[in-house]
Amino acid sequence: MSFAPLQNDTFLRACRRQATDYTPLWLMRQAGRYLPEYKATRAKAGSFMGLATNVDYATEVTLQPLERFPLDAAILFSDILTVPDAMGLGLSFAEGEGPRFAQNVRDESAVAALAVPDMDKLRYVFDAVTSIRRALNGRVPLIGFSGSPWTLACYMVEGKGSDDYRQVKSLMYARPDLMHRILEINADSVATYLNAQIDAGAQAVMIFDSWGGVLADGMFQQFSLAYTRRVLAQLKRTGTDGQDVPRIVFTKGGGIWLEEMNALDCEVLGLDWTANLGRARAIVGGQAGGPGKALQGNIDPNVLFAPPERIAEQVRSVLDSFGKPHTDRSTTGPTHIFNLGHGISQFTPPEHVSALVEAVHGQSRAMRQA
Amino acid sequence: MSFAPLQNDTFLRACRRQATDYTPLWLMRQAGRYLPEYKATRAKAGSFMGLATNVDYATEVTLQPLERFPLDAAILFSDILTVPDAMGLGLSFAEGEGPRFAQNVRDESAVAALAVPDMDKLRYVFDAVTSIRRALNGRVPLIGFSGSPWTLACYMVEGKGSDDYRQVKSLMYARPDLMHRILEINADSVATYLNAQIDAGAQAVMIFDSWGGVLADGMFQQFSLAYTRRVLAQLKRTGTDGQDVPRIVFTKGGGIWLEEMNALDCEVLGLDWTANLGRARAIVGGQAGGPGKALQGNIDPNVLFAPPERIAEQVRSVLDSFGKPHTDRSTTGPTHIFNLGHGISQFTPPEHVSALVEAVHGQSRAMRQA
Repeated sequence: MSFAPLQNDTFLRACRRQATDYTPLWLMRQAGRYLPEYKATRAKAGSFMGLATNVDYATEVTLQPLERFPLDAAILFSDILTVPDAMGLGLSFAEGEGPRFAQNVRDESAVAALAVPDMDKLRYVFDAVTSIRRALNGRVPLIGFSGSPWTLACYMVEGKGSDDYRQVKSLMYARPDLMHRILEINADSVATYLNAQIDAGAQAVMIFDSWGGVLADGMFQQFSLAYTRRVLAQLKRTGTDGQDVPRIVFTKGGGIWLEEMNALDCEVLGLDWTANLGRARAIVGGQAGGPGKALQGNIDPNVLFAPPERIAEQVRSVLDSFGKPHTDRSTTGPTHIFNLGHGISQFTPPEHVSALVEAVHGQSRAMRQA
Repeated sequence: MSFAPLQNDTFLRACRRQATDYTPLWLMRQAGRYLPEYKATRAKAGSFMGLATNVDYATEVTLQPLERFPLDAAILFSDILTVPDAMGLGLSFAEGEGPRFAQNVRDESAVAALAVPDMDKLRYVFDAVTSIRRALNGRVPLIGFSGSPWTLACYMVEGKGSDDYRQVKSLMYARPDLMHRILEINADSVATYLNAQIDAGAQAVMIFDSWGGVLADGMFQQFSLAYTRRVLAQLKRTGTDGQDVPRIVFTKGGGIWLEEMNALDCEVLGLDWTANLGRARAIVGGQAGGPGKALQGNIDPNVLFAPPERIAEQVRSVLDSFGKPHTDRSTTGPTHIFNLGHGISQFTPPEHVSALVEAVHGQSRAMRQA
């Protein structure tokens, strides 16, 4: 497979801890309901899964935010629950209710029936990756993604979203053996899934451990981090174009475990808004010429409800908390990829996103020259 | 006012960083829906506020968990939203829906109308404190409490619970001046409220910053921590019996800001289950003979859904993570008060609470002798 040459490598350079002219930026859930054009495509598709499983629609919505904003990366439009759906659990999205599985996994027999799914059932995802990569035509890199083994397990055991994670934690505390078995299968499934995305054209991959932060200290290490590590160990390091494929790990609420996450074999750590980027940089960012990880994040998505001048102030505060990134092109060093600390809200005014993008690019360029 | 002498001072000693024979224990929301006898009293009262505003019922339910379990402290049965209710916002609890205010506070005029409420409107709370203290008859100490200024503001601005805190954060980012005004009034109200609880007989007080952890780094310090500090500075240090009144601060999700919370003028910090107690002890626990804070927490309430032998294992893990507490009766040193990392679930089997209490008392006694 061959694709057009990359025109904007700012994001990939920052992932590799290489100096950039400005701080690259993309937004979690950047293709989404806050955009009227997304809602129009979604209406045509009839349902969320109708949208996600149709290669043309998935390509269309992935590119929509890039038409509006000069973002530095695209991310595959899909859902983290495609993998358990392919395992046969029967995913559906009831209007205004969030995802739901027809079957949940809570006992010995349900766990025994689980297996790494046939990747042919996820062909629509890999086809979408290739289609998007073609449509991007080298404009910016394409990020593939998956939910983490633990995050997928939360939905598989609960059967839907949860406030208290009672079912999944009950299983974990009462039957850790069953929980470990689910997580092994999930880890091997996620690794296979991400490798197929890489083969289809993904230029970076991200693991969303959206619910890692609900775990107790000690349990996070055993039931989330260990299986993220198992995924990372199996990932391909090289994409279709012979380039290395940076791996991003994001644990919402994981700032408290940064020392332990530093030991992960990945290039980038994502952080939510509770983390102090300066402190995180000191722990994982490394020094110029030495090893370390790039950091991604972490403005509160609710900042986007404030007027543009307040958004610019909060951007300043996030850039300042990371501090001046490394600028020496002859070596690697601490770098920052700007993002939200979690997905963008459906209620966000799109013109406020423009203000954010402009502030990040403008201020971060100025900062490097100061 | 005079009350019966205290028979079990284990909890208060641990708050003061004095050595104890075992690790004292109480449970957030220990008087609650997981107890059938609570549900019976609640049914008699007709509504949640009917229960909370009736001195006899409030006394009855506060004592119910102590009849079942040898807990080391009682906590006033009430709600954190009594203060904004007394401000005139019109609190109600719709069945199965959680609290709701008739009015919310989102603009200049609503903020201008706010004031520290007349404490006569909260007389039912202070009367309950005195009644409970009498009914306890010195068995264990009584803890009074309030929501933190920020946590109260969340409900006042949102008008009810929230998933994303969009309204309160929009106001904070767009109109920080209005948010600071709300928080000043809340802080002075909370201080007055807690002082009246102390005068009515409370032997320790706790500030629940239940929503501090949803704030971004930098904003937490300005909009939550600063106002907790403002409350603490105004609190009485001595109770009706001439004893000092320990002050406990609990920020759910606050483990990431422990260094900053260490500077608070309080005796005890509460932690949720994401925090590592050993690391927390190293940051805030101090050394024998030196200054420091006691730590309270932090088992995941979902542990209580596992069988008793698993509960005992998880208790071990929490006790071990704190490590052996200080045992020298001639001086102060690091101490631990066992608690959940958040309120107990309504679905908890009461017999599992017995298993927890037994494990904490038994293991923590053995640990001191090892």
